[in-house]
Amino acid sequence: MHRIKHLARHLSSAAAQRKPVCLVLGAGRGIGGNVAQKFANNGFHAVLIRRSDAQGLKELVDNIKEAGNDASGYLVNAVEDSAIEDLIKRVETDIGPIEVAVYNLGAQIGNVPLEKTTKKAFERGWQLGCYGLFRLAQSVLPLMAQRGNGTLLVTSATSAVRGNAGQHSHAAAMGGRRMLCQTLNAEFAKSNIHVSHIVVDGAVDAPDTLGKMLGPELFQKMRESKGGEHDGLLVPSSMAETYWHLHQQHRSAWTFEIDLRSYSDKAWWN
Amino acid sequence: MHRIKHLARHLSSAAAQRKPVCLVLGAGRGIGGNVAQKFANNGFHAVLIRRSDAQGLKELVDNIKEAGNDASGYLVNAVEDSAIEDLIKRVETDIGPIEVAVYNLGAQIGNVPLEKTTKKAFERGWQLGCYGLFRLAQSVLPLMAQRGNGTLLVTSATSAVRGNAGQHSHAAAMGGRRMLCQTLNAEFAKSNIHVSHIVVDGAVDAPDTLGKMLGPELFQKMRESKGGEHDGLLVPSSMAETYWHLHQQHRSAWTFEIDLRSYSDKAWWN
Amino acid sequence: MHRIKHLARHLSSAAAQRKPVCLVLGAGRGIGGNVAQKFANNGFHAVLIRRSDAQGLKELVDNIKEAGNDASGYLVNAVEDSAIEDLIKRVETDIGPIEVAVYNLGAQIGNVPLEKTTKKAFERGWQLGCYGLFRLAQSVLPLMAQRGNGTLLVTSATSAVRGNAGQHSHAAAMGGRRMLCQTLNAEFAKSNIHVSHIVVDGAVDAPDTLGKMLGPELFQKMRESKGGEHDGLLVPSSMAETYWHLHQQHRSAWTFEIDLRSYSDKAWWN
Amino acid sequence: MHRIKHLARHLSSAAAQRKPVCLVLGAGRGIGGNVAQKFANNGFHAVLIRRSDAQGLKELVDNIKEAGNDASGYLVNAVEDSAIEDLIKRVETDIGPIEVAVYNLGAQIGNVPLEKTTKKAFERGWQLGCYGLFRLAQSVLPLMAQRGNGTLLVTSATSAVRGNAGQHSHAAAMGGRRMLCQTLNAEFAKSNIHVSHIVVDGAVDAPDTLGKMLGPELFQKMRESKGGEHDGLLVPSSMAETYWHLHQQHRSAWTFEIDLRSYSDKAWWN
Repeated sequence: MHRIKHLARHLSSAAAQRKPVCLVLGAGRGIGGNVAQKFANNGFHAVLIRRSDAQGLKELVDNIKEAGNDASGYLVNAVEDSAIEDLIKRVETDIGPIEVAVYNLGAQIGNVPLEKTTKKAFERGWQLGCYGLFRLAQSVLPLMAQRGNGTLLVTSATSAVRGNAGQHSHAAAMGGRRMLCQTLNAEFAKSNIHVSHIVVDGAVDAPDTLGKMLGPELFQKMRESKGGEHDGLLVPSSMAETYWHLHQQHRSAWTFEIDLRSYSDKAWWN
Repeated sequence: MHRIKHLARHLSSAAAQRKPVCLVLGAGRGIGGNVAQKFANNGFHAVLIRRSDAQGLKELVDNIKEAGNDASGYLVNAVEDSAIEDLIKRVETDIGPIEVAVYNLGAQIGNVPLEKTTKKAFERGWQLGCYGLFRLAQSVLPLMAQRGNGTLLVTSATSAVRGNAGQHSHAAAMGGRRMLCQTLNAEFAKSNIHVSHIVVDGAVDAPDTLGKMLGPELFQKMRESKGGEHDGLLVPSSMAETYWHLHQQHRSAWTFEIDLRSYSDKAWWN
Repeated sequence: MHRIKHLARHLSSAAAQRKPVCLVLGAGRGIGGNVAQKFANNGFHAVLIRRSDAQGLKELVDNIKEAGNDASGYLVNAVEDSAIEDLIKRVETDIGPIEVAVYNLGAQIGNVPLEKTTKKAFERGWQLGCYGLFRLAQSVLPLMAQRGNGTLLVTSATSAVRGNAGQHSHAAAMGGRRMLCQTLNAEFAKSNIHVSHIVVDGAVDAPDTLGKMLGPELFQKMRESKGGEHDGLLVPSSMAETYWHLHQQHRSAWTFEIDLRSYSDKAWWN
Repeated sequence: MHRIKHLARHLSSAAAQRKPVCLVLGAGRGIGGNVAQKFANNGFHAVLIRRSDAQGLKELVDNIKEAGNDASGYLVNAVEDSAIEDLIKRVETDIGPIEVAVYNLGAQIGNVPLEKTTKKAFERGWQLGCYGLFRLAQSVLPLMAQRGNGTLLVTSATSAVRGNAGQHSHAAAMGGRRMLCQTLNAEFAKSNIHVSHIVVDGAVDAPDTLGKMLGPELFQKMRESKGGEHDGLLVPSSMAETYWHLHQQHRSAWTFEIDLRSYSDKAWWN
């Protein structure tokens, strides 16, 4: 499993090993990192996965550990053959049973007209947006079903319910993601596995995704006009509260679909 | 305001008067009573409203007060002229500013074929399902907007998104309710008022509504086969956790629509 | 039945009496009048209903008759008690069995903030948008079911699927209308009655509705910028082709819901 | 372009060359073949594409030609690299400008639990359900836009709007297809290209797809219980009427989404 680089892991105490595992695919300084931190704060061993930026990953893991909680981090390129499958095996073996899996890989590439949307971009959209979730589900849901419980939280986007001009790759991927979440829920809810599809309907204050897409200047401008106390950008640490709530819901009253947006934004249908 | 009977109210201490108010329209031993209790446990003065059963109302209020929290109860027939409007004025004057309003009036009358659905039943469905929410919103949202914040949580049902045979009155009412929630959100979110439409997609373990509709025997049977540890009925105290979470959400990441169902139930679209 | 004024009716020949009847509630010079004409051109006796403007109604009826087809017209205020019920009885007795009913009453009042939306306006919205359809359905669907076939075509609007700011009355009414269409379809499709909900997602080039709401000057401006060869307004005669097609569909492949908009408009979800 | 085998083509007369072209991807004896025939009957040169069964394709083409109309047929494996792209070029060069493209490739593989859904099947679902449409659109919509008009009719399925248990591959593919249709419409409607997403909500009386999936015995049973005069299966020739109507719609009143089901079936939401 050469392509997975283990960065940091806490295996020393027996107590730590007994902690349930929360695996987050797509863990930057936005939703993923904050969800990992939230679950770690509440007794989970957080396993953070991202494709690149070893230093950034280390910082996220270290932050959690410095607060006295447990975290590990791996660099994994989820689109590579068997990368997700191998990861699940490794985490289950080395860290412990995955109780919560968070699929937080994005596939947004900005608005691109049809003629400029390359086949490669369209396929990459599908791999990150839809196929990766299928592979994660196939690797981990049967284990959860066997153990009698589990939670799969899937970050999604406006494009899962609305296809705007220029969003060919992203919307096709996210429309597939949403329906896949429905089929997973339809098959696994009765096995006590909570699948939830979270429609993030707005821009997130996430330096590693939106920040990179916009570039530092535009991102800074957006932050100044909509971020901070303006609350016009979705704040990841606040979003993480809802991810945690979804996991906490009693199985007699589970949520499958929920939307999240800033108070100052229009809903996608308006 | 002869038609409102004040049952129990806690006005003695200055501290109590400073508590924010959570008003619950439709407060029986199901969702309404449990949401009231949850908010009271978290520092709200809960104001419970129901149409009848003074004794039942008193018990709900007393339970909250016995736990050391604050609650009041009124019998109000919401469909009467100016009943809701007068109630809002009275609560605002006598108890305090309403920070959270929960619209929990149901309009389910069971499956009735078109020819047997009376005009009266159809109109009553609209009055409880849709018009009452309009009147509540018109009475309380401007006050909230003036004060700079507020929350309106609206219990809704499968019929808001799916019209089944025999649900003529209920679905027409709930379809209207859902769209009304959208228009309220579209107008008031930017004024810092959080409107949320909660799609309850299943039978609730509520003796005062489902229990009365089914009758004691059928309700008991249903409870035995789906209730209790089976978690096949939505448990109101668990649902109340989600109502509370919605209120707690930071305004940078608000939810407008959320569904709730038992793990063992099919989603409405399946 | 004093409140129904019979304006024009063709009862002379036996041949005419054998024609199936297409009843159009809401027949001005927009969708309603054009649908009536289309069905009359294809062998139906068109019965045009509107609330006011006897002269306008007469012209629509005369146009149809001058083309050698059959039409009748009545002024009916659909919100009056038993007006719709009496109308159905009268048409069935005097003209013939209603094979197609078109519910085309609108409830759009423009954008009005919540505080300025009167209770009367909200109730009127419901009466026209939702309750009138219920009354029509209750009066005519059982007759159709007894005869073994029928079609109910319901004009609807963007507000049936999206609640925008200021659309409180209209969206609540149309959301109810949509769900009611679903419950009617769920009960009556198997009885060979085709219910169809037509989401008109844009401004219609209709002088009697949009024209009156905007006033002559604004309407003329809109027509100049979006109408005519611009095709930016929905053209009622073109829409009527789709109404006719829906009625023509073989029952092995019926449409329940369809949207209509100009090529130059954004869809409501975009 | 070795992988495309030209079976039958009518190039002899100048008149034929002037006919507009209707290209149908996925042309068996179900929807595809019937839509091709309908358009051929109305003055189009129908180009039928299927993956296999040269004899079946020849019969469909011959039927159209024997009726005095124009048709061609090609065997094309749409999932091969550049197969769709080459096809478009060839048809445009050899037959004429494509005015109507019908994407009718299905991706239904029956209900398969998650663990038994192979990665290959999931990817194949995407290739047929979503990626092929992207490739078709990218090849032909710019040509249509350049010429100032065109129609893209996309057959879709219940799984585009509802994810049932066992439909992981199909629903993910069709959910992507639906959103892709929305993005195509959002970009190209204003260029006078009519994109329509047709939700086929039930079993189709199609021997080449449903027939092969069920096997001859089960298919015969289904036909006996639901087919023929029972109208419980969607009849392809009736569906073709709606495809034709969509193409005929005036651009002031276009339909993007429409559902089709038998009168005797429940709608997917019921």
